[in-house]
Amino acid sequence: MTNTPSVTESSPATARAAEPGEHRPRSLSLLGLGAMGTALARTWLAAGHRVTVWNRTPARAEPLRALGATVAGSAAEAVAANDLVVLCLLDDASVGETLAGAQLAGRDLVNLTTSTPADARAWAARAAGRGARFLDGGIMAVPPMIGVPEAGGYVFYSGSAELFAAHEEILAVPAEARYVGEDAGLAALHDVALLSAMSGMFAGITHAFALVREADVDLGSFSGLLADWLVAMARVAVTGEQKAEKGEDQGDVASNLAMQVAGNVTLLRTAEQQGVSAELLTPYMELMERAVAEGHGDSDGSVLAELLTAH
Amino acid sequence: MTNTPSVTESSPATARAAEPGEHRPRSLSLLGLGAMGTALARTWLAAGHRVTVWNRTPARAEPLRALGATVAGSAAEAVAANDLVVLCLLDDASVGETLAGAQLAGRDLVNLTTSTPADARAWAARAAGRGARFLDGGIMAVPPMIGVPEAGGYVFYSGSAELFAAHEEILAVPAEARYVGEDAGLAALHDVALLSAMSGMFAGITHAFALVREADVDLGSFSGLLADWLVAMARVAVTGEQKAEKGEDQGDVASNLAMQVAGNVTLLRTAEQQGVSAELLTPYMELMERAVAEGHGDSDGSVLAELLTAH
Repeated sequence: MTNTPSVTESSPATARAAEPGEHRPRSLSLLGLGAMGTALARTWLAAGHRVTVWNRTPARAEPLRALGATVAGSAAEAVAANDLVVLCLLDDASVGETLAGAQLAGRDLVNLTTSTPADARAWAARAAGRGARFLDGGIMAVPPMIGVPEAGGYVFYSGSAELFAAHEEILAVPAEARYVGEDAGLAALHDVALLSAMSGMFAGITHAFALVREADVDLGSFSGLLADWLVAMARVAVTGEQKAEKGEDQGDVASNLAMQVAGNVTLLRTAEQQGVSAELLTPYMELMERAVAEGHGDSDGSVLAELLTAH
Repeated sequence: MTNTPSVTESSPATARAAEPGEHRPRSLSLLGLGAMGTALARTWLAAGHRVTVWNRTPARAEPLRALGATVAGSAAEAVAANDLVVLCLLDDASVGETLAGAQLAGRDLVNLTTSTPADARAWAARAAGRGARFLDGGIMAVPPMIGVPEAGGYVFYSGSAELFAAHEEILAVPAEARYVGEDAGLAALHDVALLSAMSGMFAGITHAFALVREADVDLGSFSGLLADWLVAMARVAVTGEQKAEKGEDQGDVASNLAMQVAGNVTLLRTAEQQGVSAELLTPYMELMERAVAEGHGDSDGSVLAELLTAH
């Protein structure tokens, strides 16, 4: 393996913390070679680890073979090859099909396939039933961020704390590893919560650019102002929401729901004047109006999460 | 005026840049003493300026009289008292009522009342017809941020560049002044675009907290992760959107619309599992689906702003 750094395997008794860029060579199997799986495999290979790969469409494994990967002939063979088995497949159903004929007893399964909290908990139970330890992961990165620590991507992990402790070092090679709890569903819950919040922010950014796109506005300056504003308001909003959920005093509410509802009129009229559909903004406005109608006009926005859960 | 700093009036020929916290005393009138107007008045008085105030409900002026303000008996009297006249009223209709009987010839009107771009342009035209210069302002702050530079609030201004140049120093006392163009509508357009984007982000944050509020999640850690994620993604999204609107090459699109639409299934299933209504997320998802159906599956999200404008 030409990419292997010149490091020696230490016995556990004499193991020392690895220097940055230095890892004891370890072995793992990786099932699923889409864009994300391929990025993971390349990073592990580049760091000198021994990787057995499998993909339903075998052709996707060939470039990795050229980089030193071992290509397994079947999913069961890949699972049999190493204690540590990482899955990065299309969806939850693919995980079931892929593992159907595999012997899981004694294996450490790490499922990086996009999943819901309930999917992850179901796999934790199935893995336990088949004699395997299980860890679910939620990747907070796109493939180009894998293996690029300065890009800021990371992976949420939840499930077996023993599995995470045993493999943290190799799991942290592609992106920072953040363990969030024994409940296997917590990684997916964190993942989906952050992606959902991002989706709302992207909707707002879409509306903002729609408003200015035909106006005489310098987009470079506008973009800088918009990003700075969202960065500042993200910190303010998240802190307020956290205090409210904890039942802490939030001090003076500078802009309560009744005031925000009054201000929405200007947002809607401006959208109309600029010929922009307000469809991305209206559900949140309607939720605020419902909260005010139910007597929460003096509260800040944190009461809204409760209303969203209640029905 | 006990709050007046010991500075001397310089003639224009010998004027030097003011030191921080030092301002030549100037005179202005302020109409409208809600929470924001009162915060503005206090800041100008504290900086040693001469402020004439008026409010429809006179009682709100009394605390400012105690701080050195002159209280006008009518709106017309307040307008007559000074060249520089700042309006901070309830809404656009209030501006019309308040200025109905006032002599505006030779006045410099600065309207900080929340307004739409069309409101602002209409006032610029009316002011010109009545012999006044006009500047519209959009305040990016809540009252507690006024007079607190480190809070990061600021005010967008657009309209008469001469008016802005003549009064920039005194306008910058309550919060940083950012001039965005001669078109009087541009301040409101910037203001509303940023508030609209924030509204979307708040909707996303509301959904995220609704997802985790009944789970075994440490809200302090979660809040930090969520804020960091939104901060990172705000910069990524705004940069991509800006490049797309300018027609610049965006390089590889790491997550195109078709991939995002596929990922939405996990967001919706998780919301359902956690008992959270997806009403705040679905309009943006539907817009993405429409874009994919129209052949934009390979594009990134920036095509969505155009779709939002087109119908």
